[in-house]
Amino acid sequence: MKKSIVSIVMGSDSDLPVMKDCVKTLNEFSVPYEIQIMSAHRSPNETSVFAKQALKKGIKVIIAGAGGAAHLAGVIAAHFPLPVIGIPIKSSTLSGVDSLYSIVQMPPGIPVATVAINGAKNAALLAIQILAVDDTKLQKNLIEYKKCLSNTVIKKSNKLKEIGVEKYLELMEK
Amino acid sequence: MKKSIVSIVMGSDSDLPVMKDCVKTLNEFSVPYEIQIMSAHRSPNETSVFAKQALKKGIKVIIAGAGGAAHLAGVIAAHFPLPVIGIPIKSSTLSGVDSLYSIVQMPPGIPVATVAINGAKNAALLAIQILAVDDTKLQKNLIEYKKCLSNTVIKKSNKLKEIGVEKYLELMEK
Amino acid sequence: MKKSIVSIVMGSDSDLPVMKDCVKTLNEFSVPYEIQIMSAHRSPNETSVFAKQALKKGIKVIIAGAGGAAHLAGVIAAHFPLPVIGIPIKSSTLSGVDSLYSIVQMPPGIPVATVAINGAKNAALLAIQILAVDDTKLQKNLIEYKKCLSNTVIKKSNKLKEIGVEKYLELMEK
Amino acid sequence: MKKSIVSIVMGSDSDLPVMKDCVKTLNEFSVPYEIQIMSAHRSPNETSVFAKQALKKGIKVIIAGAGGAAHLAGVIAAHFPLPVIGIPIKSSTLSGVDSLYSIVQMPPGIPVATVAINGAKNAALLAIQILAVDDTKLQKNLIEYKKCLSNTVIKKSNKLKEIGVEKYLELMEK
Amino acid sequence: MKKSIVSIVMGSDSDLPVMKDCVKTLNEFSVPYEIQIMSAHRSPNETSVFAKQALKKGIKVIIAGAGGAAHLAGVIAAHFPLPVIGIPIKSSTLSGVDSLYSIVQMPPGIPVATVAINGAKNAALLAIQILAVDDTKLQKNLIEYKKCLSNTVIKKSNKLKEIGVEKYLELMEK
Amino acid sequence: MKKSIVSIVMGSDSDLPVMKDCVKTLNEFSVPYEIQIMSAHRSPNETSVFAKQALKKGIKVIIAGAGGAAHLAGVIAAHFPLPVIGIPIKSSTLSGVDSLYSIVQMPPGIPVATVAINGAKNAALLAIQILAVDDTKLQKNLIEYKKCLSNTVIKKSNKLKEIGVEKYLELMEK
Amino acid sequence: MKKSIVSIVMGSDSDLPVMKDCVKTLNEFSVPYEIQIMSAHRSPNETSVFAKQALKKGIKVIIAGAGGAAHLAGVIAAHFPLPVIGIPIKSSTLSGVDSLYSIVQMPPGIPVATVAINGAKNAALLAIQILAVDDTKLQKNLIEYKKCLSNTVIKKSNKLKEIGVEKYLELMEK
Amino acid sequence: MKKSIVSIVMGSDSDLPVMKDCVKTLNEFSVPYEIQIMSAHRSPNETSVFAKQALKKGIKVIIAGAGGAAHLAGVIAAHFPLPVIGIPIKSSTLSGVDSLYSIVQMPPGIPVATVAINGAKNAALLAIQILAVDDTKLQKNLIEYKKCLSNTVIKKSNKLKEIGVEKYLELMEK
Repeated sequence: MKKSIVSIVMGSDSDLPVMKDCVKTLNEFSVPYEIQIMSAHRSPNETSVFAKQALKKGIKVIIAGAGGAAHLAGVIAAHFPLPVIGIPIKSSTLSGVDSLYSIVQMPPGIPVATVAINGAKNAALLAIQILAVDDTKLQKNLIEYKKCLSNTVIKKSNKLKEIGVEKYLELMEK
Repeated sequence: MKKSIVSIVMGSDSDLPVMKDCVKTLNEFSVPYEIQIMSAHRSPNETSVFAKQALKKGIKVIIAGAGGAAHLAGVIAAHFPLPVIGIPIKSSTLSGVDSLYSIVQMPPGIPVATVAINGAKNAALLAIQILAVDDTKLQKNLIEYKKCLSNTVIKKSNKLKEIGVEKYLELMEK
Repeated sequence: MKKSIVSIVMGSDSDLPVMKDCVKTLNEFSVPYEIQIMSAHRSPNETSVFAKQALKKGIKVIIAGAGGAAHLAGVIAAHFPLPVIGIPIKSSTLSGVDSLYSIVQMPPGIPVATVAINGAKNAALLAIQILAVDDTKLQKNLIEYKKCLSNTVIKKSNKLKEIGVEKYLELMEK
Repeated sequence: MKKSIVSIVMGSDSDLPVMKDCVKTLNEFSVPYEIQIMSAHRSPNETSVFAKQALKKGIKVIIAGAGGAAHLAGVIAAHFPLPVIGIPIKSSTLSGVDSLYSIVQMPPGIPVATVAINGAKNAALLAIQILAVDDTKLQKNLIEYKKCLSNTVIKKSNKLKEIGVEKYLELMEK
Repeated sequence: MKKSIVSIVMGSDSDLPVMKDCVKTLNEFSVPYEIQIMSAHRSPNETSVFAKQALKKGIKVIIAGAGGAAHLAGVIAAHFPLPVIGIPIKSSTLSGVDSLYSIVQMPPGIPVATVAINGAKNAALLAIQILAVDDTKLQKNLIEYKKCLSNTVIKKSNKLKEIGVEKYLELMEK
Repeated sequence: MKKSIVSIVMGSDSDLPVMKDCVKTLNEFSVPYEIQIMSAHRSPNETSVFAKQALKKGIKVIIAGAGGAAHLAGVIAAHFPLPVIGIPIKSSTLSGVDSLYSIVQMPPGIPVATVAINGAKNAALLAIQILAVDDTKLQKNLIEYKKCLSNTVIKKSNKLKEIGVEKYLELMEK
Repeated sequence: MKKSIVSIVMGSDSDLPVMKDCVKTLNEFSVPYEIQIMSAHRSPNETSVFAKQALKKGIKVIIAGAGGAAHLAGVIAAHFPLPVIGIPIKSSTLSGVDSLYSIVQMPPGIPVATVAINGAKNAALLAIQILAVDDTKLQKNLIEYKKCLSNTVIKKSNKLKEIGVEKYLELMEK
Repeated sequence: MKKSIVSIVMGSDSDLPVMKDCVKTLNEFSVPYEIQIMSAHRSPNETSVFAKQALKKGIKVIIAGAGGAAHLAGVIAAHFPLPVIGIPIKSSTLSGVDSLYSIVQMPPGIPVATVAINGAKNAALLAIQILAVDDTKLQKNLIEYKKCLSNTVIKKSNKLKEIGVEKYLELMEK
């Protein structure tokens, strides 16, 4: 097994149903990763140790998901000199607006690359894009991936034209 | 000079024009304090060292002001076992809603006692109320303070009745 | 039974499913409390009598939960000179943003220590932190509590590494 | 001088530049009023005494303006059985959204008739409409007032047609 | 049957499950009312005819409930010289914030007395308070109603003290 | 079959349950349309080719529905010189506020005619109104449509008066 | 002078500094228009008479600008069967969010084509696009207009490349 | 001069006073860049040509700033397979919330790495972090940069302790 170059962390195991999409996408692109639960608030020492040692361990990108007062990504970015991607997790009371603002509104000096609320798939894709900057094979795969996205849309559109709105809706419900 | 029992911290010196009201109020109640600038993002090591050592140094309450992705209060509360009071500083783009959500929406286990946006005076009063729980002299001073607040309102109201709206507005403009 | 030193109040019995977490946490720390329903709007006399007499009865911290135009915490803080902790209850129409703003945006002079929307557990922990300021036994318990929080996160993270994402998700669903 | 039947209250004298429009409008309709400063938080006893005695003093409608955690109207409505009109004052940090939610989102049982943020003129007009329910002279004056509003709009529109956009804008700037 | 003095209108029959609380409360206070569906947008002529004739028909207060771009209350207030009470109905997409802003933010000259989102009961109580301004019997009933509200809260609080949190929660679930 | 003059596009087939209301309404007015799925992000080439060729193909109005960072309408409007109507689709995390702002806040030079969140029916009606500008038959049908809307409201109101609130609610539940 | 085919209306003359951009743009495309001030609330009769007669007078598109509880566009759309374009005017307290929601969230049956807050220029362009549906000369002008927009951007970009960021900023300040 | 590897684009030259901070920071790290103005709406062809050719030209990261319905970053990300960083520019009406939502809420498949509203400096730092993933010299510089940030904070804090709050505030005002 290859050494992990992406590290996925989340503030609570309740974030896992969202964060699992990172795993799926990194697997599709054969990018080796590790995955952990750590909390900026409940396990702060483990979190800062992780953030300080990640570079030496060979981690190139960190993906951090958290909800509410979502400090995890920012706290890791305080130590880690390479890209940190933040995923605002949808919260039960404020729908993730709190998570989004806590992650994206970082002060000058310490960026966090923020994706959409619950945007775990895109966080993984962004990590892959970052790794692809100096990896022409990953670049090819990303270009191929874009074609697939496009083809899927086109196929759906053609099917809709072919079978009409009502039948398409019937198929969707199944 | 007495040993500090309240520690005031802020994420940036640009928060000082707001945070100075903490100082003023703590002085009024003769509560010894220290004041520092530290950033959860730009000086994370100093911040966690501070948070871990504060109890031993004799600090009983920490007041933390920060704006934007305001992680300072939460990051300190992760280490410090006594009360942490958070002041959301008004931000230039989102008026402090980002600061407020970043501070108040803490996860179960790690509370931050949040006051109003730019509510530095109230943060100090809350710290004093906390110290007053086992300090009858401070309790008396707080009861006296409440009477002053009330008297000030009553005096203004009486003046308004006496001189009328127009003259009162004229005096306010001066 | 010991005399209550924390008083938990709520604006309506519909808040009880949230507020019960205060009770659970105070019990864990063996902090004696009382619990009541009172409304700043529907039982204003009882509320102000309560707020005025609480200090003499030996109450050191009041926790007040309310939703919508959540005036309960502020109205009690107007009379009570020691810390008042406000819990914004999630409302059916505005998800608790109304409750949050009504509680946290107090004017200078009368602070309310606000926790997260539906943050009843943290309100209790904050009350315990306040009581711990001059109680070294409670301080030890809080430090112990922080270790438990940390250990729980670490155990979950280890389990996730051990059994993998898919099996962990299966266990969560059970 | 006639006995006051409308009582105008505000949480702080800083609300007076907005609240003065109530006075102006009540004067135009010759409705006798009193005006006071009182705070639900800083002068709670005076506020509840006022609210309990207002009916006996002959007050028929109370207009209450406050900003931030604007509890004044709700606290008065808890005691006063006749209409309470709430004016959310624009706040420096949240533009009055906090004031609006604190005033309008009252629980079932205790209504507050809420007008627009800084809507002091409309608060006075609403008070007059309430008094006009059983006062045919006031009804006539309100019908007349509506005609004036309409005529003013029509005149401005005619002037705009007559002199054109550019000249109209020039006149506005003067 | 007595002549209606309150008129309840709503923009759509889908608002009826909320608006029925107006009916219930007006019945409790024996205030005669009429109830209709009319839309500022879909039946504008009927709406303006209604608003123009309401005063002559003896209507003293109009309660208007609507959701989304909720223009009904404002459009009626444009014609009717006595109090119009607006109920912002919770909308499927914006939770009633759209309805609230559309109703409460009326321009100077034409007030709408706005209650909470879905606050149909309070709209009726406000109408009764308005009618009570010159009706001492209604005043007595409102004072009695306030006592009932208070007693209900006190009884619930006593029951909670008596049976404890767990049993109370069990009873609530039944 | 007539040549399409309205083109309905949507960013994803998950938008179809909302967008189908466009189809239904255009059918009612016998306006020929085409319907397609295309994404500003996943099939950008197809989208810009479509937008550039639509005018030559005889399309007179384009209706575009999308959610989240909803760029579809704006991207099409960048190329198409005739009216583009944007439908903000309700999103799972931000309820469509994100979609609304992404569609309506277009910069000077490139308008998008925005309707309500999930307002697919109104988007179709707006397209028909646009086509009716130079089509007196469509104008007649729209005037007739308005009468139907009005009659439906009146009938419902009459039924409510006839059978009363309780029976009406019973019928609604069935 | 040609007969007006676009009618520009606004709720108050204070909207004119924004609405003047409509006039400028319609002039550039030589589209004949009329301009008036009318209020859904203060001059409701004039407004409904206008809306009912506009079609017969030859008006093909109505542009309505209003702020706050911005009912003007919706009230006109209730009567006028052809396109109504709504401009949400930025309000002093809620920055135009209230105006936007009041205009865009129209119920099914009565669309208003909404543009950006203060988007007067785009409202005019949308009106021209609507008129261009059956007017090939206007179509040509719109296509030409798009080219100009594009050229302006390209020229600015070229200048920026040529003179560099600092000199460009200096020129902007002049 | 070295070949550009970062491309900075903005929707309008009015964004330049914000975007200039990108330039400054990239210069500090000696990262070669190009800078252009292009609009997703006003110069769509230039924008898509740019996005399609950027990879071949050697561009590794694109930074795109835009305000309002800020589609620029998303439209470029639709074509470019490597990282696109989006800067939401503060808008005059909605303070940049519209820009933020338009940029961050991208659909699955096409990420945009979003930074804070007006966060141009952090966008550049994020680009540098991305380039540093396979560039140990840049890594060293970033680690050094973090130390500088930390030292600056520490120096300010020491100065505050040394000269006190009042003198510090005096120096800030100068």
